Amino acid sequence: MPGADAAAGPATAGSAIHCDALVIGAGPVGLFQVFQLGLQGIRAEVVDALPMIGGQCIELYPDKPIYDIPAVPVCTGRELVALLQRQIAPFATGWHLGQVVSRLQLRDDGCFDVATSSGQAFVARTVFIAAGVGAFQPRLLQVPGADLLDAKHLFHRPPPLPMLADRQVLVVGGDDGAVQAAVDLADAMQTLPAGLQPAGVTLLHRRATLTAEAHLLARWQAHLDAGRACFLTGQIVALDTVSGRPAQLSGVQWVDGDGQTHARPVDALVVQLGISPKLGAIADWGLAMARRQLVVDTAGFETSIPGIHAVGDVVSYPGKKKLILSGFHEATLAAFAAAARLRPDEPVLLQYTTTSPRLQQRLGVAMPSTQPD
Amino acid sequence: MPGADAAAGPATAGSAIHCDALVIGAGPVGLFQVFQLGLQGIRAEVVDALPMIGGQCIELYPDKPIYDIPAVPVCTGRELVALLQRQIAPFATGWHLGQVVSRLQLRDDGCFDVATSSGQAFVARTVFIAAGVGAFQPRLLQVPGADLLDAKHLFHRPPPLPMLADRQVLVVGGDDGAVQAAVDLADAMQTLPAGLQPAGVTLLHRRATLTAEAHLLARWQAHLDAGRACFLTGQIVALDTVSGRPAQLSGVQWVDGDGQTHARPVDALVVQLGISPKLGAIADWGLAMARRQLVVDTAGFETSIPGIHAVGDVVSYPGKKKLILSGFHEATLAAFAAAARLRPDEPVLLQYTTTSPRLQQRLGVAMPSTQPD
Repeated sequence: MPGADAAAGPATAGSAIHCDALVIGAGPVGLFQVFQLGLQGIRAEVVDALPMIGGQCIELYPDKPIYDIPAVPVCTGRELVALLQRQIAPFATGWHLGQVVSRLQLRDDGCFDVATSSGQAFVARTVFIAAGVGAFQPRLLQVPGADLLDAKHLFHRPPPLPMLADRQVLVVGGDDGAVQAAVDLADAMQTLPAGLQPAGVTLLHRRATLTAEAHLLARWQAHLDAGRACFLTGQIVALDTVSGRPAQLSGVQWVDGDGQTHARPVDALVVQLGISPKLGAIADWGLAMARRQLVVDTAGFETSIPGIHAVGDVVSYPGKKKLILSGFHEATLAAFAAAARLRPDEPVLLQYTTTSPRLQQRLGVAMPSTQPD
Repeated sequence: MPGADAAAGPATAGSAIHCDALVIGAGPVGLFQVFQLGLQGIRAEVVDALPMIGGQCIELYPDKPIYDIPAVPVCTGRELVALLQRQIAPFATGWHLGQVVSRLQLRDDGCFDVATSSGQAFVARTVFIAAGVGAFQPRLLQVPGADLLDAKHLFHRPPPLPMLADRQVLVVGGDDGAVQAAVDLADAMQTLPAGLQPAGVTLLHRRATLTAEAHLLARWQAHLDAGRACFLTGQIVALDTVSGRPAQLSGVQWVDGDGQTHARPVDALVVQLGISPKLGAIADWGLAMARRQLVVDTAGFETSIPGIHAVGDVVSYPGKKKLILSGFHEATLAAFAAAARLRPDEPVLLQYTTTSPRLQQRLGVAMPSTQPD
């Protein structure tokens, strides 16, 4: 797109991706949405808040068994995602991970301007919301002024270790993620060359008991015993900052179990308070909702705005059950409906992957055939 | 059930099976219906016209690949059925194969009297029609008097070879099934001891070209070359019978491609004209239909008669696509609806196989747990 046009507006800037289908959510239902769009000959762009593919399956139960996927007697969340990734491999797909959709606007031409938190812009002809219970986002530190802190001083996912070189790091949290981050930092004090090591590692949790896996707790205890790290029980109540915009961190005020306030000089905060799903901006797009679910028709899983479909746990209709297998069905009917919208002059035929040369060609498994499609 | 009650009526005879759920159809959707009922703690009885489990998948494309079952990148019809059989293995299920449901009647107590072509009777609290495009039944020989023939003279599936000992057998048809039957009979003339061999084998097909697999055609040709069998091109126009009820076969009148009529003495007819699906008695139960499909609501996949659900290719609703994966979704919602009907005083909770000790117990995979259900 030429530079002159690019200046016209932020959502259609030079880097805007024009696409037939934008899928919001890379969980199992979003992945199968990509598959069904692929069978219809429609290429998809996919946005997800998490930095990896798989959604809840990967974030919440990667190693737990699932028994009710039809014809898959048992698989883990991770295995389910791997199977779906194999299934969509034939279809070229654009991935935009680690970002949430922040803006959606209907254009005069019937397309949608969409922008993400990373500044990626799309002009999409159809949109598929497969957002599950919402974007999985880190639970934020609830302390006055935290939102004003420099991004180099407050991290909601552990940054690359070199970014913490020579800094006094405070890790906040008490579960696997927090203990892992603290252990990694303490490891770095042993293994990285001087100059790249953190200056100090402290773990702060509101309770005295950490709830992490045994092997992590053992490694953490070893670091404590060796005096390489420090564990505090309490909660942050205020941040000490060096003035400026954004503000730089110089220390925290924290309160222990007896109500005593302490000051601790730190210049990097790694917050690991778990994740919580948020429907986020989707709730503000004017789509009809019922009890925080998107209302859809069960023929094409279209929302109240034509061209925007919704599938999976985010939707509501009579009889709806929040099951992965229902999302698969919903994604399928949504793909048929979108194909009819995108190609209004062409009848959308029901074809079978077992017999259709056209579908087999799209899947990359076409056999030489003497019969016409 | 005591004998006195048993005399009350044919459908509730001594052998009637009382059940919470009767599934009509053992194709993939019927099998997954059994699974979802099992998760709800409901045991199913299953009736199918075919002598084996699997429906269309087994009858029409056992060895052809299917690519659109979610999380199963590729499988054959046979493999899909095997996977589903493994998935329902934890649930005790009653199988009633090789018979069609011939009668269904609402009882005063809200249950259904159901009877099959084999005389099996059921008293079912809920019924699930997963009949696909209908019961797969052999295409019948369309010749006057064929319906009057003795069952020992006219076969629509090849009988055990000893039943054809010492008889002049005419096989009718030209596809794999017909050629296989003719080859098996000619083989028997070589391999079985005298007295068990057929007296003669003739294959009659309306065209000169047989459409069977190459290895079958080669074996058939070898039998022809050795003079052990005979091939005729033409069509049967009349049956010669020995009077009696039922009539016994003594020969056929057939017309060749030039319109000449011939007589051929035979005393056993093996008709192999393929199979064709028939909705059969289901169409006569007073269920609301649209274009030969059963009308259902998309919340619980109930037909116009409460307690009778329908799922899979047999149903119609806005957006319906005849895809196996949609049948899986439909069967799931039907199971939830039936559970609510069968246990009106108990809320039907959505539980997950990944986390619910109750579901895991039903699946036989329960882990020792310290947490209550």
